[in-house]
Formats: sequence, structure tokens, C-alpha cells
Amino acid sequence: MPAKIKTAVLGATGYSGYELARLLLRHPRLEKPLLFRRPSENGDGGDLAKLFPALSGNGGFPLQPFSWEALKEVDLLFLATPHDVSRALAPGAVARGIRVIDLSGAWRLKQPQHRSVYGFHDSDAAAAEELTDKAVYGLPELNGEQIREASLVANPGCYATSVILALAPLLAANVIGREKGIISDSKSGVSGAGKEPTSRTHFVSVADNLSAYSVFGHRHTGEILEQLNLNAAELIFTPHLLPIPRGILSTIYVHLNREMQPAEVQSCLQDFYAGKRWVRVFETPKLPEIQFSLHSNYCDLGFCLADDHRRLVLVSCVDNLLKGAAGQAVQNLNLMYGWQEDKGLA
Amino acid sequence: MPAKIKTAVLGATGYSGYELARLLLRHPRLEKPLLFRRPSENGDGGDLAKLFPALSGNGGFPLQPFSWEALKEVDLLFLATPHDVSRALAPGAVARGIRVIDLSGAWRLKQPQHRSVYGFHDSDAAAAEELTDKAVYGLPELNGEQIREASLVANPGCYATSVILALAPLLAANVIGREKGIISDSKSGVSGAGKEPTSRTHFVSVADNLSAYSVFGHRHTGEILEQLNLNAAELIFTPHLLPIPRGILSTIYVHLNREMQPAEVQSCLQDFYAGKRWVRVFETPKLPEIQFSLHSNYCDLGFCLADDHRRLVLVSCVDNLLKGAAGQAVQNLNLMYGWQEDKGLA
Amino acid sequence: MPAKIKTAVLGATGYSGYELARLLLRHPRLEKPLLFRRPSENGDGGDLAKLFPALSGNGGFPLQPFSWEALKEVDLLFLATPHDVSRALAPGAVARGIRVIDLSGAWRLKQPQHRSVYGFHDSDAAAAEELTDKAVYGLPELNGEQIREASLVANPGCYATSVILALAPLLAANVIGREKGIISDSKSGVSGAGKEPTSRTHFVSVADNLSAYSVFGHRHTGEILEQLNLNAAELIFTPHLLPIPRGILSTIYVHLNREMQPAEVQSCLQDFYAGKRWVRVFETPKLPEIQFSLHSNYCDLGFCLADDHRRLVLVSCVDNLLKGAAGQAVQNLNLMYGWQEDKGLA
Amino acid sequence: MPAKIKTAVLGATGYSGYELARLLLRHPRLEKPLLFRRPSENGDGGDLAKLFPALSGNGGFPLQPFSWEALKEVDLLFLATPHDVSRALAPGAVARGIRVIDLSGAWRLKQPQHRSVYGFHDSDAAAAEELTDKAVYGLPELNGEQIREASLVANPGCYATSVILALAPLLAANVIGREKGIISDSKSGVSGAGKEPTSRTHFVSVADNLSAYSVFGHRHTGEILEQLNLNAAELIFTPHLLPIPRGILSTIYVHLNREMQPAEVQSCLQDFYAGKRWVRVFETPKLPEIQFSLHSNYCDLGFCLADDHRRLVLVSCVDNLLKGAAGQAVQNLNLMYGWQEDKGLA
Repeated sequence: MPAKIKTAVLGATGYSGYELARLLLRHPRLEKPLLFRRPSENGDGGDLAKLFPALSGNGGFPLQPFSWEALKEVDLLFLATPHDVSRALAPGAVARGIRVIDLSGAWRLKQPQHRSVYGFHDSDAAAAEELTDKAVYGLPELNGEQIREASLVANPGCYATSVILALAPLLAANVIGREKGIISDSKSGVSGAGKEPTSRTHFVSVADNLSAYSVFGHRHTGEILEQLNLNAAELIFTPHLLPIPRGILSTIYVHLNREMQPAEVQSCLQDFYAGKRWVRVFETPKLPEIQFSLHSNYCDLGFCLADDHRRLVLVSCVDNLLKGAAGQAVQNLNLMYGWQEDKGLA
Repeated sequence: MPAKIKTAVLGATGYSGYELARLLLRHPRLEKPLLFRRPSENGDGGDLAKLFPALSGNGGFPLQPFSWEALKEVDLLFLATPHDVSRALAPGAVARGIRVIDLSGAWRLKQPQHRSVYGFHDSDAAAAEELTDKAVYGLPELNGEQIREASLVANPGCYATSVILALAPLLAANVIGREKGIISDSKSGVSGAGKEPTSRTHFVSVADNLSAYSVFGHRHTGEILEQLNLNAAELIFTPHLLPIPRGILSTIYVHLNREMQPAEVQSCLQDFYAGKRWVRVFETPKLPEIQFSLHSNYCDLGFCLADDHRRLVLVSCVDNLLKGAAGQAVQNLNLMYGWQEDKGLA
Repeated sequence: MPAKIKTAVLGATGYSGYELARLLLRHPRLEKPLLFRRPSENGDGGDLAKLFPALSGNGGFPLQPFSWEALKEVDLLFLATPHDVSRALAPGAVARGIRVIDLSGAWRLKQPQHRSVYGFHDSDAAAAEELTDKAVYGLPELNGEQIREASLVANPGCYATSVILALAPLLAANVIGREKGIISDSKSGVSGAGKEPTSRTHFVSVADNLSAYSVFGHRHTGEILEQLNLNAAELIFTPHLLPIPRGILSTIYVHLNREMQPAEVQSCLQDFYAGKRWVRVFETPKLPEIQFSLHSNYCDLGFCLADDHRRLVLVSCVDNLLKGAAGQAVQNLNLMYGWQEDKGLA
Repeated sequence: MPAKIKTAVLGATGYSGYELARLLLRHPRLEKPLLFRRPSENGDGGDLAKLFPALSGNGGFPLQPFSWEALKEVDLLFLATPHDVSRALAPGAVARGIRVIDLSGAWRLKQPQHRSVYGFHDSDAAAAEELTDKAVYGLPELNGEQIREASLVANPGCYATSVILALAPLLAANVIGREKGIISDSKSGVSGAGKEPTSRTHFVSVADNLSAYSVFGHRHTGEILEQLNLNAAELIFTPHLLPIPRGILSTIYVHLNREMQPAEVQSCLQDFYAGKRWVRVFETPKLPEIQFSLHSNYCDLGFCLADDHRRLVLVSCVDNLLKGAAGQAVQNLNLMYGWQEDKGLA
């Protein structure tokens, strides 16, 4: 039995951080993780099970105040923090030889025009730029090789995960007519908006409702464009807020650049994800629904092809807190240490 | 005070029929409507307030078994029945001089290729064809003049209402690049699926879920195409089932055939609906949400324009039981008798 | 046509205040009401339809900063404000000859031990005490006569309304064995917790959940005790937070002090509420459900009697924003001006 | 490594049966279970993952038509069937030496007056009576010893589990004043009503609603009475239908027969469940909520004591499909084979 790996979670009190802590606690190759509140949070100490009573009855999960000292023995640090905190802390961790998986948007984007929506204020701009270059976009199905060696993994956005995984096979096969435009009409549960109480996340605002938001301006757009080598004119991404706690469904519209048969599209998706543990391709015309991947690390994909053999509707579902955040982070961890991809996730 | 009009509702025990009965009961120009169960329903007699206790305490609402005899004094008959029942009964009513507003899909479509999805089996095909020609598609904002004179009004589908009203102004202004395709990604509450208990409408199937259905094959597609003079290759319409009881939101994607400014698009919509009581155009970038039009007869419209001034996202919301069904039926009734358009609806 | 009455709403931007504004705007005997934000609210001015877009398209609803000057012509002031604000402002209004209907808990309680949970800090304690004596508890079915003449009406709490109306007939008939204890297990939708975003009202906290709160300590307990002349040992009132936006259901358990037949209990309830417009008594064993009274001013009552003819379960439902708040306020207004009880509410 | 045990599930296509199948599939001491549809179900064969796509991507889960032949090698049979099916099949299984865990109400009740609500029609009444005597009520925290040796375990009802576990410690300590009556006001998610689509389980009937049902007449009442040695006059049990897919919360009201301190009540509960893996006792005044035990096998208990030290409110939560059904069945399985109580459940 090899020695276990020591991990820490910074920001364990948010939705993704908590979900991550739960996964790490039962991961067979890990010591019990260190859990930190966000630097900005009031209330040093305490216990995670007080905040999330679902955890209680399983021993203590002490929350520590963050310090570099406390990270001394840590092999890998998860940052489940706002992007500015991740931007400030990741360089220090990497410099100390600690591998980092960051769940925020801080390190996902290489191109300045996409990063600008975040408005980063780096104290050491050169170091931040250098680390940006080294950071690996942590989508295991696409970037597995680089993730294995990475010192900093930028865990993808939840929406971006659902959209990129749906489109990657078809773009790789070069069958999409990009000039006609790709549209992702995406819908997410409320946990994607974070744990902060706002008028937007108030129960009465969300229940019995549906709303579109950030049209032509959502931060995940840049990730999708970069990972799929699209330009801004080729994609419209429209997020919506669903009256459910968790789960994402993206309905994606593409034009094919040649006529295809359903079986061809089916093969294109299935072959691309052959052997990939966490992507399920449904047989057309059966489509995934949000419930099917809830509480799992799966990305579910399905499609319908029009009678003209040219127009394609793809449906992609993920649990935004798992494949869209904490689950994918554990999948990345597994890659980084050479473990099976479903360790701690099955 | 002019004499009151006598109406009847066939199918008052379904969601739309009940909603219609409620509206008619408080309409100031109507006698208390006669209420009929569907011909196929078990249980002659009874009282609508037994089935919908929200009605109780306001006197009796007896349900009658259907007969032509009972319709003798009736001026106008609402058919809130399955399309085959509407198809069978409307000719008889019209022949007896009773005006008809049909809430089903029986009489909405002129073009045989669109009607084929319904698979009508008319006992008198010639009469049915003749009545099809006379039937007026009851979207008051577009067809007000014809509705006024109609003997048979085909009340539009709920999805179709939301999509047609959003697109009509831009198509009328001839600013849409149809060849690039129009997409309506539409989402509806469960009452749109009817009152019949099925595995699809079971609470556990719908809650915490979202699903796309009838992709490339929903019956409302034909209505949209006919009313907007589009051909099938120019539109994709994708319905989704939302975990809410009622309400529709359509997110609609169009390419403009020339660059436009937001103010121009705004005017295009506002001018088209100037003086229309039941359409509200939001000021960009404010978008409608399902909650805003719930329990009202409004269709709410809003839009966002991309930086390239070419790509447009429209959002359209209706309450599927009101502007999408019973409310619009009353709006049509008001037109047919020359009353103000918000009589019984304000 | 008599002159219309001039009203104002202070706190029109909260859930109850908004609901009240909507009712007043369509009330046939009122001028368009003046709408004020709460004194503490940021953002003077603005329009109520901006905050509640459901209102839009019906003209302007300007929000004014509060001042006594602005109230000069006002006949009746609704306070939809926190209790401390109501406590501070009501004396000034009454002194100026303005009648007041207060929707907070500020003036509902006569007995100091019940008031203590609110911790009032009155600047003029004697004046506050005097006004407390004059205030009428605004439950029209019980206190109609006093409400007619009142200068200050303390509109009941939502939970209290549901509990008091269920128990009043049986207590009046002296058939309850109080010494065995009365229990109200009450469940409310989230709008009852107010519009302030908190971790408790976050969608993710409420959805797929149910929780009891304020056990043995909810503020509405005092109202129930005072109105029903119970002592604290005779009642347990336990509120729960339901994953719905609005509506209250109270399940109430009582012991009868003698054997009764179902028909006797039925008569007891029905006779008590004979001629009362806004109470509906269901025929046992049919029970009210939250949906039945939603969006109405009804209080729905029903019951089941055990085989031993001694133990009784009552079920009472109200819409917490209507019969539990704004609707009841309008019902009180109607009484105060001698109008029909359903004016503006039907 | 000892040989694995061979199990089968009859009725794997219902909610409890499916949940059970999922648990058994990952249980480390079991072979892959045989899965049977209910005898009455149409559609022999098929695959469980077709009906529950959440299962897909993990190999095949073939559904077999039921036959005794197919059960030949089976050690233990789970019956997730309607009570009449369980009543008909359990004797045959036991006679063949197959141990049985039955999830229905068929074998839970010893006393004829409680059983009468089920209206059993046994073909061999003597055999059925004999097996009734041998059946063990499968609540592991109370009947662990007998469960270990049982050939037929009657898995408790979901409501009954929540109520019995809350009351057992206090009744054992003899501190409840039974003559004043015990009340359990219980609320359940919709999966408790089964997978059959009915007007009661239609999404539109349940959403935005709450309803009480089967007042003074729910089948689980008998279980509670028998297990706690109460007579019918000492308990009122009122179930309600919550607008959530799963989870139960029971609010339970008892009178103490002497004054107690909160710490005493706390100890009473904690001591009773010391070492019990699947009961969590919360520290007063912290109360469990439905979310906390969802997707787990925990029963969560909490309480508040009135100032008079006499009146006690208990709150008890379970996931109706786990601790209330399939999870408890696995817990029983573990006991029956001498495995740790959390095998396959952690």
C-alpha cells in the first residue's frame, strides 16, 4: 500500500468546496483533507458538519484558518475560492511545490480578451502571466496528458464543461459549419450561482420561474471559445436560471457542413469518448435529462438530427457541482497521481 | 345595457377548460356559461367546484352531459377538447349557427403537410375541408380583423403564441436572415402537457429535472411556420419540460440581414405592438421572466443584440393557460363581439 | 358616485406591500394609492413596476420618499413595515387624523408578556401604551364591529389568522378540552419570511426540504393566545418552512370535552361562519389544500373526527400574502368605510 | 474472502426496488443481484437502465420474468412488491429455504385489527398465519437480535420508521404521559406514494401545494402502535404530501409524565442510540431538516422542550427510499449475515 496523499481544500464552506470535501473524505488514496475557510470568511475554526449537518455523525471536520504554515505537508491544494483569491494564492502554492487544482475562473483563460471580463489585479503581473502559461485547462477527456504533469490545473466552469464536451467530437471531425453559428441554450440549477444569499437566489425569485441572464456576456463563453478554437462570432451561449437546486442541461444547435446519417453522428460521439469513464453517449433519439446525471460525475450526451441531415440538436447534461466542479476536480486529481479515473467517484 | 351573450364550454374539466370557465364566470358581458364535460368523460353531472375546490363557495357550477339540445340557446361554444373531438363537433356547431372558439389543434393548420401530424379522420372530409378554409387562426395581434367576423376561431397553441409574437415584427420589417435559420428554444410548465396522469407528468419525473422532447417533431411547429410564412428549413423549435406548473419562456435566436442598433430593434417591436393591450415590450437589455406574466394574459417580449449588431436573442414569455390558451380565447371572444380587448381579463 | 378615498402604502416594495398595492390599484372605491418605500430603504423614487415587472404596462407607479407632508390628503395609511417602524409612525398618523392599518406585529398584542418578544423601544411610552389600548385586532370575522370604528387596525399575522379562524367556533361553543392541550402544526411558504435574502431563504436551502423553526417561541403565538383567551400552557404552535412561494396550512389537534358527531362539528363551524364572505368550510372528510385558497382571500377550513368522537383534526389554509396579510388589510378597509367585504378582492 | 451471497429483487422497477437494486449492485459482499419485474408487469425482460437511465453506462442490468426456477441459487429474496403479491409469494420462498426481506406491509402486523386495513386474501390462511408469527419487524435499532435469525423480515413503513425511532427511547424510559395523547404530524415527499401516475401524483397537483390525507386512517398507524405497545386512543398520526420528491419529516408532540430538563431528554435519546450507526441525535435546540438525511440511511432526531419542562416536540427525518425502505432493507441484510451495519450503505 503506497503512502497516502495529503490534500487541502481552501473554501470548503461554499457549495463546491463542501461537495469536494465530501468526495475527498471517502477517497481511498487520500489522507483526511485539511479544510480551510476562505481567507475573507468570518469565523475561524468551527466544524464543517455544523454548516452542513448532512456530514454530522461521522467524526469531526475541523475548519482551520488559512496559513502557509498549515499547508507545509500538503501535496495538493484545491482552491474553491473566488477568482481573485485564487489569482492571489496559486502562485505562492506552486512556488512552494504544492500542486494546485483551482475551481475558479482565475487560470482557465490564455487569451487576454477573454480574461478581461474578470478584471484581474495581479500584484506580480509577470509571475501571474507565467503561471497562466503553465496552467492546464482541466478537462480530462480533452487534456488528459497535460493534466497528468500539471502543477496548476484550472478546473473548467460548469457550463463550459457541458458545452465543450458536446461539441468537441464534431469539431474534431470537422463536420460543423461554423460560419452558420453554434448556439448553446444552457440552463442551470441555482447552486451554480453560489451560496451567497442575493435577491436573485431568494426562493421566491426562483421558484415557479425561469430567466435568461448574461446574454452575450457570460464569463464561461471565453473558455468554450478557447478550448474549441472558435471565434466569438461563431458561438452564442445563453445561460438560464432553473428552479432546481443543481444540474445543467445545454441544448446545442449546430449546422453540419455536409449531410450525415444519424448513425454517423452517433459513431462520431461514441468513438471520441470510447474508453472515457465519465461521458455517456445516449442512442438517438433518446436524450439525456438533468435527473440522469444528478449526484454523479457523468456528462451525458445525446442528439437528434433533422430530416435534412444537416441540422443537429445536441443535449448535454452534467451535475454542476460534480462533473461541473468538485467531481471533475477529483477526476483531475486521479489523473495527476496516476490513479484510476473513477477513484473516489464511483 | 345590451343583452348578455350565452356561452358554453365543452371540456371544462381540463386545465384550459377550467381556466376558461373561471374567466367566463366573471366576464361582465356574459351570462353564466354552460359547462360540459368532454363527451368521453365518465361521470355525467357533478359540479366543477368539486373537481377544482378553488372555485367553491361561489355558488354551483353544474357540469352537464353534452348534447346539441343543451346548446340550443348558446351563441358561442368553446371547445376545450382533444383535437379529434373538436374536429368532429365544430362542423355541427357552425352549421347550427353557433360561433366556435376551439382551443385544440384541430383547425389551426391550412397546409396538409402540417396537418398530417394530427392524423385527422374526418367523417365528412369535404365539410371538414371547407371549414378548415373558413377557420381563422385566433392570434388577435395579427389577425384581429378576420377574428371579428369569424364563425370558427382556431385558438393558437401556447408555444406557438410565444414564438409567433416574438418573430412577427421582425419578419414584417424584413430584417431577419432566414437562410441562416431561426431557432426557438422553448420551455414550458407541466400544465401544458395536460391533466392526464402519465409517467411523464408524475411529480417525481418532473421535479429537480429538465428535459427536451419532440425535437424536430412538435405539433406546434406547423402553426409557427404557417403564420410566419416560413418553410420548414428555416426554423428549429425545441420544447422542454420545466419543473413548474405553468408558464412558457421561449429563447429565440435570429440573424439579422443587416446591422441594426438596439434602438432600432426596440422600435421595431414597440411600433408593431403599439396599442396592443396584451403585449409588453421590455426595454433592452431587461428581459422578461416567466413569473412576470404568470396569471395574466400578457405576452412579454424582450431582446439582446450582439456587439456585431447582427445576432439577436429574443425572449418571449406567456402563461400557457392564459395568453397561451384560455385568456387568448377570451380575447378572441371580445373581438368577435366588439368588446374591449381586456374585458374579463384585466 | 361618492368621492373616492385616498390611501397610501408605506413599504410598498416588500412582498405584502406590493400585494397590497396591487389590490388597492384595482379597488373601485379608491383613488390610485400613494406608494412609499420604507424609510430605511435606499433609492428614493423609482417605480414599483421596475421592482415588480408583473405590474408593468399599466402606467406608472411612482415610489415616493416618505414624509408627513406627502400624507396630507391621505385618509388611510397602510403600514407594510417592520414592527419598529410601525411602532414609531402609527402614533403620528393617528394624531393627524389618518386612519391606519398596520400589517406588522407592532399593535396586535395587549398583554405585556406577549409583547416582550418584540422588544419595543417606544420614544413616547405613554402614547404608545394609549394607542395599544385603542388598536383593534383586525380579524374581520371576529372583530368586525370594532374594526368599523377603529382608527388603528392591527392586521393579524398570517399564521395567527389560519389558527384563530379554525379554533374560534369550537372555543365559542365551549367544546374544546383545553386542559389536554391544543396543537397547531403549521406550514408556510417562503414569502412569509420576507423579501430579505438570507441563507434561510436561499433557494438551495429551501428546495427539496422541510424544516421546523421557532418551536415554542414564534411571535404569532401571543396573538393566538390573546384572541382565543388561551393561556400559554394550552397551546403549542410549531411553524415549518415549506418549499413553496406562498400559502399556509395549519393542522390543528384538539380534544373535545364531550363526544360529538361529525355533523355537529360541521354545524358548529358552518353556523359560526354563516354569511362570512371569506371563510369556506369544507364538508368532512374533504380537507382544504394550500392550492385551493392560493391567490384568493379565502380562509379554508375542514376537519376529521376520530372514531372515539373526541379527537378532532382541523385543517386551515390561507394565502399568507392575501388573507394572511394584504387581502385581509383590504377586507378591513372595506369594513372601515362601510363597503361590501369583497370590494377589490373578488 | 468468503463466498458472496446471492440475492434477488422482485419489483426492481418501482422506486424502492430500483433504489434497492442500486445499493445491492455496489454492496461488497454480494454477487450481482437478480432483478425481476413484478409478476403483473407487462414487458418481460428489458434492462433496468432503460427505465432508470441514471444507471446506464455501467453494464447491463437485465430484468427477468419471475419464476421459482430462476430463484434456485438465491440466498435471499427482496420483495419490493404490493402487499398482496408479497403475501402470496413469501410463504413459497421461505418454504424453499430462501430468506426474505419484504418491503411491503404484508407481514408487519401481528394484530388482526391492524391487519384488517389491508384486507388480505390468503389462499392458505393457516400457512399465512404461521408465517405472520415468524415474521420479524425489521427495525434494526429495536429488533436487531431477532432480525439476525429471521427467515422473513418485514421491512418497516417509511412513516413508521420515522415515528417509532423518535418515540422508542422515551417510551422505554417510561417518561411519556400516554393518556394525554401522542401526535405525529408527518410530511412525506411524493416518491412515498409510489411510481404509479395518478391525479394525486401529477406534478400540477403537488407543486406549490401541501395536503393532509388518510387522517385517522393511514396503514402505517398499526405498525407504530404495535411496535410501541400503544393503543389506538394514545396516538394520532397525520400524513401530509410535500412538494418534494423524497424525504420525510415527522413533528411529534408528547406530554412528559414528570418534569424533565433538556439535558435529561438529550441523554435519554443519545444513550438509547449509543453505538447505533444509523441514528443521529441532534443537540437541542438544533433540529434536523429533510435535506440533512436525504440520500443517506440516517434517521435524524432532535427535540425542543417547553419552558414548563413537560411538553416536548420531537422532530424525526428519514429519506423514505433509504432508511424508510431500501436502505433499511440493506441494513437488515447486513444483520442477517453478520456483516457491519453500514456495509453497502456508507
